[in-house]
Amino acid sequence: MKKLSLGFLGFGNIGVGVWTLINDMYDEIATNNGVELDIKKILVKDINKEREVDVDKSLLTTNPDDVINNPEIDVVVEFLGGEQPAAEYMLRALKNGKTVVTANKMAFALHWSALHNAAKETKSGLYYEAAVCGAIPIINAITESMQGNRIDHLYGIVNGTTNDILTRMEKNGLSYEEALKIAMDLGLAEPDPSSDVDGHDAAYKLSILASLCFKTNVKYSDIYIEGISKISKTDMEYAHNFGYRIKLLAIAKNDGGRIEARVHPTFIPIEHPLANINGSMNSVFIHGHACEDMMFMGRGAGSLPTASAVVSDIIRSTEHKSHVYPNFYNNGNFVVDENWESAYYLRFAAKDTPGVLSKISGCLGENNVSIQAMQQKGTSTNARVPVMFITHTACEKDIQKAIKAISDDVATLESMIRVENL
Amino acid sequence: MKKLSLGFLGFGNIGVGVWTLINDMYDEIATNNGVELDIKKILVKDINKEREVDVDKSLLTTNPDDVINNPEIDVVVEFLGGEQPAAEYMLRALKNGKTVVTANKMAFALHWSALHNAAKETKSGLYYEAAVCGAIPIINAITESMQGNRIDHLYGIVNGTTNDILTRMEKNGLSYEEALKIAMDLGLAEPDPSSDVDGHDAAYKLSILASLCFKTNVKYSDIYIEGISKISKTDMEYAHNFGYRIKLLAIAKNDGGRIEARVHPTFIPIEHPLANINGSMNSVFIHGHACEDMMFMGRGAGSLPTASAVVSDIIRSTEHKSHVYPNFYNNGNFVVDENWESAYYLRFAAKDTPGVLSKISGCLGENNVSIQAMQQKGTSTNARVPVMFITHTACEKDIQKAIKAISDDVATLESMIRVENL
Repeated sequence: MKKLSLGFLGFGNIGVGVWTLINDMYDEIATNNGVELDIKKILVKDINKEREVDVDKSLLTTNPDDVINNPEIDVVVEFLGGEQPAAEYMLRALKNGKTVVTANKMAFALHWSALHNAAKETKSGLYYEAAVCGAIPIINAITESMQGNRIDHLYGIVNGTTNDILTRMEKNGLSYEEALKIAMDLGLAEPDPSSDVDGHDAAYKLSILASLCFKTNVKYSDIYIEGISKISKTDMEYAHNFGYRIKLLAIAKNDGGRIEARVHPTFIPIEHPLANINGSMNSVFIHGHACEDMMFMGRGAGSLPTASAVVSDIIRSTEHKSHVYPNFYNNGNFVVDENWESAYYLRFAAKDTPGVLSKISGCLGENNVSIQAMQQKGTSTNARVPVMFITHTACEKDIQKAIKAISDDVATLESMIRVENL
Repeated sequence: MKKLSLGFLGFGNIGVGVWTLINDMYDEIATNNGVELDIKKILVKDINKEREVDVDKSLLTTNPDDVINNPEIDVVVEFLGGEQPAAEYMLRALKNGKTVVTANKMAFALHWSALHNAAKETKSGLYYEAAVCGAIPIINAITESMQGNRIDHLYGIVNGTTNDILTRMEKNGLSYEEALKIAMDLGLAEPDPSSDVDGHDAAYKLSILASLCFKTNVKYSDIYIEGISKISKTDMEYAHNFGYRIKLLAIAKNDGGRIEARVHPTFIPIEHPLANINGSMNSVFIHGHACEDMMFMGRGAGSLPTASAVVSDIIRSTEHKSHVYPNFYNNGNFVVDENWESAYYLRFAAKDTPGVLSKISGCLGENNVSIQAMQQKGTSTNARVPVMFITHTACEKDIQKAIKAISDDVATLESMIRVENL
């Protein structure tokens, strides 16, 4: 029987989930996987804090060195969240030859290269399944089950909070503010929800996924990011009318070394499987030249679902280590494409006078943007009427130019949302 | 750089796919995964047959010993299909200490125990991702990403041929015979389609999945099997009316050691993600106590998608071997439950006279079957009218008794389809 001694950095929601799961499944994991998982030390802020689980206080410490520099500990499991000191602690643990398992997308995405080099130097294991999409084994799928593929694109719903908000807006006809408030009341959104709703959380995950898919380091700073706070009930309704649903998508594409990586609200066809991923569920849709389309769905967050991924990583670390070194850090042979092609949904408040439609479509046409579908809502007592377009595929820079060319005298742009005809 | 010498048993559709993928991806696999995959020998029936790929004839042999007993070969990859001689060849290869990778669900499901013991004895690797659901990494997910879970149920659409037939029946209003003919014309169904349409192919896959999920050997012979050939357009329509869609589901449940394993056409709620898996796609929906719901979707068959799984297994075999020994062969501590609980759809041709409905519902009630929904179609000139019921949850044996108790003078059972309210 193998024995593995674990040290935890942090003991919040996920840490408690891992503690619970390891205690609950101790005998079954020993029987089924031939390994006994013993938790030796847990770094906390306050030893005397009341906790929901009955943890032996002698395991708790406020000194990170009791975990990182503890010669008895084989695996350091990091749940601190945030960039620092999490990244520094993981780096030190790796330099000490310990395997690191992390659920921290931010620290991992921003410091992957340094962590990777440290792991390589000391031949330590580095595992991060739980950092992306909670329970879904998407890291394992890409690294261990798709090696024969050239992966050319991936679309992901990788943030459960925003998907919950968008689902509530759509199903219950709520405004963004109303749906956000419910998500906050339910504990799905943080008191400061900006990391989720502004798309940053999704971008950290996309950085990790795109890097693994394309075997080149797609950095967080390479990613175009736009959040969901400007999505309106009106746009939700028009999306339906045109046959679409609005999701916050993480999109990565590789066309022969030209790489796109972007996170933004997206119109996707209502009958596509991703359009039916609702509430806080996560899903990744991925295409390889051999496997073709694959989709993975599951819980992207939550204490036990995330713990499920962490515990798997810990068990896997007893078996094999070398796959944790993605062989791509010297690969600079790609370009991040900021002038991607997409279709677009445009909603204008247009002046209700003859010739206005012709002026708008003229500005679009002059910038190589052609129109695929148009809707105009019956006039009201207002001097402005809503006019909506879905364009054919156009270049991002052309659409931006076209929008600028349309004078506010003619029509004001109220909303621009990219469209992926998956 | 590691080198791995491969021998193929068989060179049909999947074998050619693996040959193509390995040749196409040779350099990339060497760079990304640090292993060179060299195909040394290929067992074929006829060396001089015209082939769609340009394979060096010196690699071809008609003598299985040139692969199985070849000291130069590390990994034997089996694509023969069918039970024998595939199982015997794999067994001999394992006894010779070679790693075996197979895409053959039938030979593997029926001979798993013997193959497992041989692999254990010689410490050889045994890999079978491609045997279940083609490209979908469901074996890897269960064995390498869900170890912290007690898996309590799984529902799978694991046969693409029948899913294609059912999708065509539903979308295009075709009869079973018409949809089967199209599937045969497209090459999706074999000239003798019985293994697919009668549910046997799905049952081999379910035997493998249920065994891994429940860590006990659920044999093919433990599985209740019913095919799709009696599904009618009429039932498709009534399914819709009641809010369901008909899929051939592979179902496995574990309730504290009472295990159900069954393959049959099933009503599933129209809004469930599995209800939207169309055409030849496969999907597995699985629930663990920690990870909660997870779903995997992808190509369940086809040359390159299946090759994608085979090539991954070959690459993974260089890294780790011990996980291929499921630790469950002495676990007899479970009961196969043949009196499972389910809801039921029943369609009768009932005599159009007063009191008939009361007689039918009386027979159901006397056998502990209560009715959740009922539809009666307007009478015609016939003496018999269609009457459809959806029951509440009932026991399989009770429903069978109730059906027998209803006299043909009153109503004839035209159709009975199980309902899973997922």
